[in-house]
Amino acid sequence: MKTYDPHQRFGRPEGGWREKLYAIIFESDTPAGMAFDLALIGAILLSVTTVVLASVAEVARDYGDWLFAAEWFFTVLFTIEYASRLLCVRHPLRYARSFFGMIDLLAVLPSYMALFVPGAHVLLNVRILRLLRMFRILKLTLYIEEYGMLGRALLASRRKILIFLSVVFMVVFLLGTVMYVVEGPAHGFTSIPTAVYWAISAVTTVGFGDLVPKTDLGRAIASIMMLLGWGILAVPTGIISAEISQQRRSHRTCAACLAGDHEQSARFCKSCGTRLPGT
Amino acid sequence: MKTYDPHQRFGRPEGGWREKLYAIIFESDTPAGMAFDLALIGAILLSVTTVVLASVAEVARDYGDWLFAAEWFFTVLFTIEYASRLLCVRHPLRYARSFFGMIDLLAVLPSYMALFVPGAHVLLNVRILRLLRMFRILKLTLYIEEYGMLGRALLASRRKILIFLSVVFMVVFLLGTVMYVVEGPAHGFTSIPTAVYWAISAVTTVGFGDLVPKTDLGRAIASIMMLLGWGILAVPTGIISAEISQQRRSHRTCAACLAGDHEQSARFCKSCGTRLPGT
Amino acid sequence: MKTYDPHQRFGRPEGGWREKLYAIIFESDTPAGMAFDLALIGAILLSVTTVVLASVAEVARDYGDWLFAAEWFFTVLFTIEYASRLLCVRHPLRYARSFFGMIDLLAVLPSYMALFVPGAHVLLNVRILRLLRMFRILKLTLYIEEYGMLGRALLASRRKILIFLSVVFMVVFLLGTVMYVVEGPAHGFTSIPTAVYWAISAVTTVGFGDLVPKTDLGRAIASIMMLLGWGILAVPTGIISAEISQQRRSHRTCAACLAGDHEQSARFCKSCGTRLPGT
Amino acid sequence: MKTYDPHQRFGRPEGGWREKLYAIIFESDTPAGMAFDLALIGAILLSVTTVVLASVAEVARDYGDWLFAAEWFFTVLFTIEYASRLLCVRHPLRYARSFFGMIDLLAVLPSYMALFVPGAHVLLNVRILRLLRMFRILKLTLYIEEYGMLGRALLASRRKILIFLSVVFMVVFLLGTVMYVVEGPAHGFTSIPTAVYWAISAVTTVGFGDLVPKTDLGRAIASIMMLLGWGILAVPTGIISAEISQQRRSHRTCAACLAGDHEQSARFCKSCGTRLPGT
Repeated sequence: MKTYDPHQRFGRPEGGWREKLYAIIFESDTPAGMAFDLALIGAILLSVTTVVLASVAEVARDYGDWLFAAEWFFTVLFTIEYASRLLCVRHPLRYARSFFGMIDLLAVLPSYMALFVPGAHVLLNVRILRLLRMFRILKLTLYIEEYGMLGRALLASRRKILIFLSVVFMVVFLLGTVMYVVEGPAHGFTSIPTAVYWAISAVTTVGFGDLVPKTDLGRAIASIMMLLGWGILAVPTGIISAEISQQRRSHRTCAACLAGDHEQSARFCKSCGTRLPGT
Repeated sequence: MKTYDPHQRFGRPEGGWREKLYAIIFESDTPAGMAFDLALIGAILLSVTTVVLASVAEVARDYGDWLFAAEWFFTVLFTIEYASRLLCVRHPLRYARSFFGMIDLLAVLPSYMALFVPGAHVLLNVRILRLLRMFRILKLTLYIEEYGMLGRALLASRRKILIFLSVVFMVVFLLGTVMYVVEGPAHGFTSIPTAVYWAISAVTTVGFGDLVPKTDLGRAIASIMMLLGWGILAVPTGIISAEISQQRRSHRTCAACLAGDHEQSARFCKSCGTRLPGT
Repeated sequence: MKTYDPHQRFGRPEGGWREKLYAIIFESDTPAGMAFDLALIGAILLSVTTVVLASVAEVARDYGDWLFAAEWFFTVLFTIEYASRLLCVRHPLRYARSFFGMIDLLAVLPSYMALFVPGAHVLLNVRILRLLRMFRILKLTLYIEEYGMLGRALLASRRKILIFLSVVFMVVFLLGTVMYVVEGPAHGFTSIPTAVYWAISAVTTVGFGDLVPKTDLGRAIASIMMLLGWGILAVPTGIISAEISQQRRSHRTCAACLAGDHEQSARFCKSCGTRLPGT
Repeated sequence: MKTYDPHQRFGRPEGGWREKLYAIIFESDTPAGMAFDLALIGAILLSVTTVVLASVAEVARDYGDWLFAAEWFFTVLFTIEYASRLLCVRHPLRYARSFFGMIDLLAVLPSYMALFVPGAHVLLNVRILRLLRMFRILKLTLYIEEYGMLGRALLASRRKILIFLSVVFMVVFLLGTVMYVVEGPAHGFTSIPTAVYWAISAVTTVGFGDLVPKTDLGRAIASIMMLLGWGILAVPTGIISAEISQQRRSHRTCAACLAGDHEQSARFCKSCGTRLPGT
């Protein structure tokens, strides 16, 4: 089975124990590589659970020692993994400076810093970034096709979505300022940024309710904003729906005229009538 | 009329009163079977209403005796029904261990337990599971085609939806942790799980408002999260829209070239021009 | 211009002033009929505005006399209109018992009742039903085609939507009961109906925030419900999107083989290849 | 490169420094014109940031002098720009009375008025309208195609969306009045407009929570409204999805038979088989 290897640019060593280690850590088409990936997913999830539990005051008080031990166990584990990654690639610096290389470092650094630097405990929450490491493994799973399709659909719509978001942003900004003038600091709209925050919560239909219009005019404007936001939600949905429908069409290319975009079930090229390859 | 019988694996008895009982209880293509289904729907809805009313303090105080009587009436009724089901199938154990067999038992058990075990009153709410019994009957109605189509559309999209949910979950987790650091326990974000609960309420545009960001940075992050959640709602909608559009195409297959995916109204194969079967 | 006349069954009188009156009141293809419709829309909107203003305490105090005068002006106007409608149709009783006949009566009755029956003032709000009279006129406008298309799309999807709503209702009921057990009356979930009300506000992403889970388990369940509701919103959207796309296809029928459902741009029948009529 | 010029009607001067100025200010197909546009975007965003910051009490107190200086810098800058625009077009009055001409004036006027008219400080917030000037430049960017497509899709659906909004408005009005009667001023529903404001917040799934039903009947009605609003959100989404899918088809017309609506990738007319122009 040939799988996608996003780490090719780090350089696959040729022969020796380094190639074997590389195959286990960076690839997933051997039983050992697959097992490593599964173990890594487990370790990531468990270590993240540790971070989460440590933030709950009661748990931290009662099971503090266990959490501390688990934390160090995972820190050492990820340190060994990080070192192994550095060891087995041909260009360690290129790996260390890559996005996932940084994440791998950030996954262990805070624990060491909290040890040596007083007051660095707040940095411990950075360890939640370990979750991002899941993305590396997700790329290598059976789900890669769906993942790619959603990504392509979003990529193909990025300009329409940008246009949409910029218009929404302007509307929200203008209406937020209007509400700042109408309601004023007396009703909690203390500044334009605060009013824009409220306008976003109204247009996106979130409606926290910490700020609410209290004047009749303010309520009328709020009503229009809510209807507006509720209605224009249809626009991004329509954009992405149309894009995904498009993506469903196959990517086969006619051998005779190079036309693409044929329906999944088509057997003949719709441009020149030649039989399509693989039918 | 041939209807779908999800209970076939329990074994249809051959001849005698047991077959007649089976036809009434498990099938719905005879007048008696249809009447039984309707009566059962009525009994389920009434008994669930009893459970709901018993939870309202004023009603429980004023009409407690009536509710108690009604409750026992339905308990005895469902007990008789459960016994009949056990009696008339060829493999009673297989039925008892099936999903609906368990639900049928759970529908009557709490009432008996509340009688014998002191303090088991809280279990009475388990009786609300009787509602699930509706699903058994829903399967047998005229709506089976639509039910199946929606189910197939969701099933066909399950991998895309899983990818989507896992990405959403990671985003919510990371941003929840960020808010925990930014706002902190002083503003109600007492732990990471609490912050994640808040992040979910923001991204899904629910916005209860029991927790709200109070710092400027927190409000800025919240604004981005609201826009994000509002915008990416378009993704699952697009996935399912495309899938349902696809499901609308008929599943007929051309007898000559085995091509499928023809439009509902097509009479000739779009691949080879042969007349489609059944037109 | 031939317009749709939903009142045909009331009987169009033949000749005389009654036919002329009928043409003005019930039809809209003459200048007089068109003017009558526009005047009626204006009168309805103004009279509804009167009702709305009368509900605002400050306005009622300061302009009570003006509102009272306006109210009686519209009441007399609508009474004359109602009498004219009764007069000019051939089957007055059939009209009086029709849906719009009832609405027309309810539009004037409360004002007279408030005059004679003491304490009937609360009934005055029934006059807001005058708004429903707008629907009669909407039916006769240029928008009839879009109105019909949306209606057909909703009608064609009604079974899928019913399935969807019944599943949503069951989920909401079961999860509401779970929350009633988990949170209990101490946290505001005083009865199952209250808990179901909360569950609906969570699943539909409304989130008023008057009731909120306070236990960790309750928050976890709430998180799942919010994600669930946010995600399954995609289902009705997908149903209706697919239906509207379908409705966009033309309703032309092939003269040779009677096949329908051709694309808007098609010039030849896709079933038999005969040229389509009107191309 | 030929770009769209929305200002053509102001008259392009022929020759001289005025034509050169016109090319820089109103067009963007020369390097100087492009640079001017980018500088203008920067100036607009910075000046809007100034307005926003001035509304935050702490910032206004600590950096008031800087903000005042920046404000006058931008006011003078935009004044020069406005004068240049007036100077270089052939019909200055036509420009001054156009939409963007008014916005350009409103972008500088409040600063001067605040100087001469005491108490005109509240007008300073009008300067936020400078944001609208972004739209002029957006029109001239690479995004013009997507912008046009979204606009066409919304325009083509405007009648369906109007029908939809008018029905939603009536439903919201009727149910708001019902809630006013059911809940009454005692529970915060002090008038019909207030109740309609609440109804809109419920139907659009915003749910601020400043007003909530407190009676059982009110909660039941609210539940129905939430489900209704959540479900019918599917309607505008379906309308726009179908429209965008339609817009994706190319607008090329067959030279032989004048048939349109061909797929983007089609090379031969689907009606008569003639090769399409431009392929």
